[in-house]
Amino acid sequence: MSLIIKNANLLGSNITDIKINNEKIEAIGNNLDEKDSEIYDAENKLVLPGGIDVHTHMSLDLGEYVAVDDFHTGTRAAAHGGTTCIVDHIAFGPKESYVSEMIEHYHELANNKAIIDYSFHGAVQDARDETLKQIEHLHINDGIVSEKIYTTYGGKLNDAEILKILKKAKETGTIICIHCENDGSIQELREEAEEQGNLDPIYHAKTRPAETEAEAINRLIYLSEIAGFPKLYIVHTSTELGLREIIKARKRGVKNLFCETCTQYLMLNESKYIDGGNEEAIKYIMAPPLRKQSDQDFLWEGIRNGDVDVVATDHCPFFYEKEKLPHKDNFMTCPGGVPGVEERVELIITEGLRRGIELERLVEVLMINPSKIFGLYPRKGNIIPGADADIIVLDEKEYTIKQDNRHSIVDYTTYEGMNSDYEVSTVLCRGNFILKDGEYLGKQGYGKFIKRKFDE
Amino acid sequence: MSLIIKNANLLGSNITDIKINNEKIEAIGNNLDEKDSEIYDAENKLVLPGGIDVHTHMSLDLGEYVAVDDFHTGTRAAAHGGTTCIVDHIAFGPKESYVSEMIEHYHELANNKAIIDYSFHGAVQDARDETLKQIEHLHINDGIVSEKIYTTYGGKLNDAEILKILKKAKETGTIICIHCENDGSIQELREEAEEQGNLDPIYHAKTRPAETEAEAINRLIYLSEIAGFPKLYIVHTSTELGLREIIKARKRGVKNLFCETCTQYLMLNESKYIDGGNEEAIKYIMAPPLRKQSDQDFLWEGIRNGDVDVVATDHCPFFYEKEKLPHKDNFMTCPGGVPGVEERVELIITEGLRRGIELERLVEVLMINPSKIFGLYPRKGNIIPGADADIIVLDEKEYTIKQDNRHSIVDYTTYEGMNSDYEVSTVLCRGNFILKDGEYLGKQGYGKFIKRKFDE
Amino acid sequence: MSLIIKNANLLGSNITDIKINNEKIEAIGNNLDEKDSEIYDAENKLVLPGGIDVHTHMSLDLGEYVAVDDFHTGTRAAAHGGTTCIVDHIAFGPKESYVSEMIEHYHELANNKAIIDYSFHGAVQDARDETLKQIEHLHINDGIVSEKIYTTYGGKLNDAEILKILKKAKETGTIICIHCENDGSIQELREEAEEQGNLDPIYHAKTRPAETEAEAINRLIYLSEIAGFPKLYIVHTSTELGLREIIKARKRGVKNLFCETCTQYLMLNESKYIDGGNEEAIKYIMAPPLRKQSDQDFLWEGIRNGDVDVVATDHCPFFYEKEKLPHKDNFMTCPGGVPGVEERVELIITEGLRRGIELERLVEVLMINPSKIFGLYPRKGNIIPGADADIIVLDEKEYTIKQDNRHSIVDYTTYEGMNSDYEVSTVLCRGNFILKDGEYLGKQGYGKFIKRKFDE
Amino acid sequence: MSLIIKNANLLGSNITDIKINNEKIEAIGNNLDEKDSEIYDAENKLVLPGGIDVHTHMSLDLGEYVAVDDFHTGTRAAAHGGTTCIVDHIAFGPKESYVSEMIEHYHELANNKAIIDYSFHGAVQDARDETLKQIEHLHINDGIVSEKIYTTYGGKLNDAEILKILKKAKETGTIICIHCENDGSIQELREEAEEQGNLDPIYHAKTRPAETEAEAINRLIYLSEIAGFPKLYIVHTSTELGLREIIKARKRGVKNLFCETCTQYLMLNESKYIDGGNEEAIKYIMAPPLRKQSDQDFLWEGIRNGDVDVVATDHCPFFYEKEKLPHKDNFMTCPGGVPGVEERVELIITEGLRRGIELERLVEVLMINPSKIFGLYPRKGNIIPGADADIIVLDEKEYTIKQDNRHSIVDYTTYEGMNSDYEVSTVLCRGNFILKDGEYLGKQGYGKFIKRKFDE
Repeated sequence: MSLIIKNANLLGSNITDIKINNEKIEAIGNNLDEKDSEIYDAENKLVLPGGIDVHTHMSLDLGEYVAVDDFHTGTRAAAHGGTTCIVDHIAFGPKESYVSEMIEHYHELANNKAIIDYSFHGAVQDARDETLKQIEHLHINDGIVSEKIYTTYGGKLNDAEILKILKKAKETGTIICIHCENDGSIQELREEAEEQGNLDPIYHAKTRPAETEAEAINRLIYLSEIAGFPKLYIVHTSTELGLREIIKARKRGVKNLFCETCTQYLMLNESKYIDGGNEEAIKYIMAPPLRKQSDQDFLWEGIRNGDVDVVATDHCPFFYEKEKLPHKDNFMTCPGGVPGVEERVELIITEGLRRGIELERLVEVLMINPSKIFGLYPRKGNIIPGADADIIVLDEKEYTIKQDNRHSIVDYTTYEGMNSDYEVSTVLCRGNFILKDGEYLGKQGYGKFIKRKFDE
Repeated sequence: MSLIIKNANLLGSNITDIKINNEKIEAIGNNLDEKDSEIYDAENKLVLPGGIDVHTHMSLDLGEYVAVDDFHTGTRAAAHGGTTCIVDHIAFGPKESYVSEMIEHYHELANNKAIIDYSFHGAVQDARDETLKQIEHLHINDGIVSEKIYTTYGGKLNDAEILKILKKAKETGTIICIHCENDGSIQELREEAEEQGNLDPIYHAKTRPAETEAEAINRLIYLSEIAGFPKLYIVHTSTELGLREIIKARKRGVKNLFCETCTQYLMLNESKYIDGGNEEAIKYIMAPPLRKQSDQDFLWEGIRNGDVDVVATDHCPFFYEKEKLPHKDNFMTCPGGVPGVEERVELIITEGLRRGIELERLVEVLMINPSKIFGLYPRKGNIIPGADADIIVLDEKEYTIKQDNRHSIVDYTTYEGMNSDYEVSTVLCRGNFILKDGEYLGKQGYGKFIKRKFDE
Repeated sequence: MSLIIKNANLLGSNITDIKINNEKIEAIGNNLDEKDSEIYDAENKLVLPGGIDVHTHMSLDLGEYVAVDDFHTGTRAAAHGGTTCIVDHIAFGPKESYVSEMIEHYHELANNKAIIDYSFHGAVQDARDETLKQIEHLHINDGIVSEKIYTTYGGKLNDAEILKILKKAKETGTIICIHCENDGSIQELREEAEEQGNLDPIYHAKTRPAETEAEAINRLIYLSEIAGFPKLYIVHTSTELGLREIIKARKRGVKNLFCETCTQYLMLNESKYIDGGNEEAIKYIMAPPLRKQSDQDFLWEGIRNGDVDVVATDHCPFFYEKEKLPHKDNFMTCPGGVPGVEERVELIITEGLRRGIELERLVEVLMINPSKIFGLYPRKGNIIPGADADIIVLDEKEYTIKQDNRHSIVDYTTYEGMNSDYEVSTVLCRGNFILKDGEYLGKQGYGKFIKRKFDE
Repeated sequence: MSLIIKNANLLGSNITDIKINNEKIEAIGNNLDEKDSEIYDAENKLVLPGGIDVHTHMSLDLGEYVAVDDFHTGTRAAAHGGTTCIVDHIAFGPKESYVSEMIEHYHELANNKAIIDYSFHGAVQDARDETLKQIEHLHINDGIVSEKIYTTYGGKLNDAEILKILKKAKETGTIICIHCENDGSIQELREEAEEQGNLDPIYHAKTRPAETEAEAINRLIYLSEIAGFPKLYIVHTSTELGLREIIKARKRGVKNLFCETCTQYLMLNESKYIDGGNEEAIKYIMAPPLRKQSDQDFLWEGIRNGDVDVVATDHCPFFYEKEKLPHKDNFMTCPGGVPGVEERVELIITEGLRRGIELERLVEVLMINPSKIFGLYPRKGNIIPGADADIIVLDEKEYTIKQDNRHSIVDYTTYEGMNSDYEVSTVLCRGNFILKDGEYLGKQGYGKFIKRKFDE
């Protein structure tokens, strides 16, 4: 049986109907043949493509701590917030492990669990020959066309290794996602903070100043230039200084450079590390840290004018009572990461429209661009005939985000008390209702792994 | 009876079908009900929205000369080149005439003549109270939501008058189209050229240097800023210097600023005033004149990165043998203007793709943006359900543009000998074939006046 | 007899002595021959070249009003403030008068009056052939190497006339000083203000927004570019927007472009039009008007980094009680101009140093640059052997500027109540004391007309 | 006995005399007391302050190779070229050695050898506590107010160490000189070159692309920003990309940032690695390598407009026949460095003037700025009373630079065959002739160590 969504007000278009058949969008238009079709009327509601969150960390194993949402609870939360596909950043695994092994491990983690569709970014912690070979193999054979690398933390790479990987990526067409922070200066600032006993949460921000991000972004861009411009994707850009490096680089002709920011950098600022005392502040330990209001405003301008390509979440929750709070007087020992996969679509649309940004732009950063950049397009991210019928319906209705109405397993929300002007009420993933007028119909294991690829 | 275009490869989408009914696009998708439908198969062809040319001068009466294409022959040429809607810049009429009178006159000129749909920009030559009232009345009642003004020529306005008009436009929401050239310096340079006997066509370019355009653009932007940013549309931007003023202004927060260039500034350069001798050169007398190759390249970059919003034609032909050639040794007496309404879509797509610009961007400057900026959207400019079925089909086939295969009444083409990689073979205007696989089916008077308006 | 200034602390140098003979600086150094020399000890004081104010309006005849300082009282005030040379902007005279006649008239006005040395800028109100000839003649024969033109007011020129003059200036090497405001929009805004009864002093500022200045600056730069870059000197730049046009132009390669601002734009802001009520506000009617604090700060940054070349005064006083106050409720009828020739050196050094700008830069904008730009160098503006012995000595001593301690004939000071960190105590003009440790020794008629010229 | 230089045409000044007494400039001016004075007439010659070269490597010990000029032969060459003071970059010494030990060692190397005055930059290869203490001690007690660090080579520091040193420098006021190249990518590119057998000299340039310099410059600027802006001096900037990073940083408010380039980057380009074959090319192995002509032109523009502060030489010669040539087919084993201490003043003045740069600017980059930036001012770098009498006289006379007329011990000159428009004929260091009308009067050991300090 087919499904027809009636009276959908697509962006910039006239009111129209959407016919879904066999998991796909079959047609959009008027006077579609309704025989044998279920009818869902979307009159006066906002109908959008399903959200795509390309930066999550389900079940991320950090050794001492493991991110508390698995592929079931995490995608359940995602679906409730209007996201119908995620691309998860996998863990490195043990020191000597290879990316392929970890991808396999993640298939096990996600399979029979995910509520919505998913893919993985590989994670690369070295530049061994075998690793480079696997990048190619994963790209060609396994639909893994993106790899994540780090300039800091355990799996950090030096510039020679990064360049090797970028050169390989240039060859294969793989897109490299990169966490950009200057490791050396953060180490030095943390050492100094420790010596001086500066361990309150605000020092988490002070020991990772904007310059540490901007430096690493600029360095990566130059390395990418040396490698002949493979696709380079800067994850969680959080500062004006950092975004300015990206803007400047594009202006001088740098190609294939993409920029992501995350909900938290658009909705919160560093006052969170002070205002509610350490007990509240410790909730927001993540890297990069929350920034100044002026950074937030600059990132929004970047969304408005196209400098920012994607808004993702870096969803990586830890239990507040058990795992965050005990570290309230020492930010250094606190596991880093916050929940957010559920709030992204509603909050970004709410705040974006309040700031006078066109809905069209918001749909680009939430749905279309993540899909195009990461090889999901045209299957995902747009309501067009032939695409997967991933569609969400939002009620124009103010409501307050509270821990009560969240669907992650974690015990707090990063956005407690914020008002959304829209509420996701209906979610379709490949033509099947995950949420229908508020009723949850999701099924563990329904979500499929999506092999990604780039059109040439 | 309905019409279904099968196997259309819409931009960035999967192959799909388009169903047309009652002049409108009814649906796009697969498995559309084909009963009672004529089928047109577009397999392996390029299917695009009909072109929209927002800068033409049909039957323009300059006193001594009248542009030789009327609304019949001009729109016939337009249609052959894939344009399904024009917005014509009307003449001022006699010194004391009002814009409303001239709009009425143009309705007479176009009615029962036009092959495709059309609208008019008003033309304002003074800032009398009555004129300001008419701007409002035309906007609210007559679907004329744009007005053209000049900084040079007979109807030129001084800065106080321009400011008055911009303030009115801010009130009503009307978009002001402005021809930007510094009148005083051009007068002085022409006087000097005359004294020195420098009357060859190349002096047409030399007496209108890039600075005269850039100056006037910048001035208009400041006046618009004083008026609170009404919509301002710079017609036929032809220089790097001028476009840089627009880019700079946007960077400092100027709003509602739009930029047009024309086919000739993208396909030709000032060597035309030299290379073929005066006999050839005189064909290209128009204002602004052809520019340097570096200007052309900069304009193309502006298209690539979104700085240029629209490509139009400023189509305003005069007979070569009878009206241009006699002035070959005195550019000052030659009527200014060139034909181009037919070549725009094919040449811009050809050259744009050769320069590696995405087809999506080219469709924006040729179809979507002109429609949105001038109040035709979503009725025109996009293939979406509910819109007018203005659709063109191009064969991927190299052919040479020659006077032989043109459809204007004029006796030469500005682009003689250029190769196009695409040829428009089929054109639908409101669901009816104007051209079908090369056969011309256009009917005088089929084209309708379109009342324009802006969505709020 | 010679004079030796002992222990002068010249900029960036060691302590040294200055020997003066026959109106000139004969030597600087140690162990100078002191035989037959008067000794003046400057230990612990600031010794600088005499100030040069290249923008004054002594006895300016506006028809209904005449600026109240003549060449005696005006230069008396100048000398007390550490200025030893002025270049006065002359009046146009009657409509048909020529610049040469007015120069002659000004020789009569200044001769036997001036306390310090002086020259004149010509003032050009038309582009008649005879006027152009006179520009050349004055440049070659009479040491008048600069001409002033206006884009507004009675003697305003249109763009064609300006271009003619700029072309002539390019030929002769004359520097063109230009008052930049967009006349048309100011007229329109004043008309509107009048209709709406907005006549309080604050509307003086509101009817001359920053855009009117920036527009005209940019226009003049383009006209100068068309003319091949004669020397162009923008007088009294008052806004960030305007200065940004200058900065931008230089960056794209514009040559021979100079920028002046004035004391009032660096020390006051538009709150003066509000804070003290209309009675106070009317004192500050001048064009351009006082601007925002952010403009002031940007101009200071321009001084710091070299974007601003000169600080002058536009000294043009009218009696407060008799001539300003009566217009307190109608800014339009109030004569425009403020006093300032006395306060410039002390206030700019005080505030400049407080803002952390190097004294060296302040000496450039107050003394060296005005001298170089206007053809007085190396005779004036620097303490070097061979130059005129124009030297001032400042005590490092805080004192308050008050009408009580002023030396102009006018009945108020623009800077009432401001504190200066330095007080000019000694002034030498061509080796003779005008002020000696606070005692005034000036003599009417001592000041000489200086023929200016440019070195090639 | 005194010395008087008669008829010196000082910059921008009138012709004047310079009286020298007791190693110092006593006075400048006219009518100086000539009793008991030797007279040297400089009529029609160019008289300038002595050159200051703040980047030399006399006797630099690289382990396998030692730079062939010692403090005698190196300063002899310097003096012949018009340089009267050098600041030498010392070697690191063995792995564990401290900077103080090496400074002591250098005192031994220079003492009784130098022809002209000298100082040393410390060289820091680690961030041990003792090293940081020594930086402070050297600054306060020993007149060593600058330290050199590297981002590449043996003594390269990681970012954490660099930040430690910058923080110390911020405390003490020490200026940090930094060699900026991205080590990791150079290693990777060299490895690749080696694998592919690309060992011809041109690969020296190809394995150190402009991005490697620009990256490191930008990184250092951010680290300096984190440290609160200690003085940072980028040595041998060689690329447009690198200089643009410096310009950009200053524009966004970065303080205390200085930029050096060297003669070779201003006079030569990378065609040297190709044109004469490997035998010729191997002469020019140094890091950074020679760059493109467009880089050279951009650096000259930087000199013109003040973006470049200093021109030095990085003088570090190795014997061509014995030490360079044997490596002609393997750039990797060749010792890096070229001679240049003798040619700097003559060539930069020649080429600078040919490019229309004002002599005043050239004197700033060759004499005044190096003196001011490195704590030699006002003792060195300017002809002012009280300063050391370091003065050079150049004949306006074209001559050709050849190995024949060089004074270093090395067996080739980097600038063979180039024409200079000026020839240094007379050199005074502290009032004594080192060169007098072409006759060499230098004495080993005359040169003194200069304790440097910064004025506050």
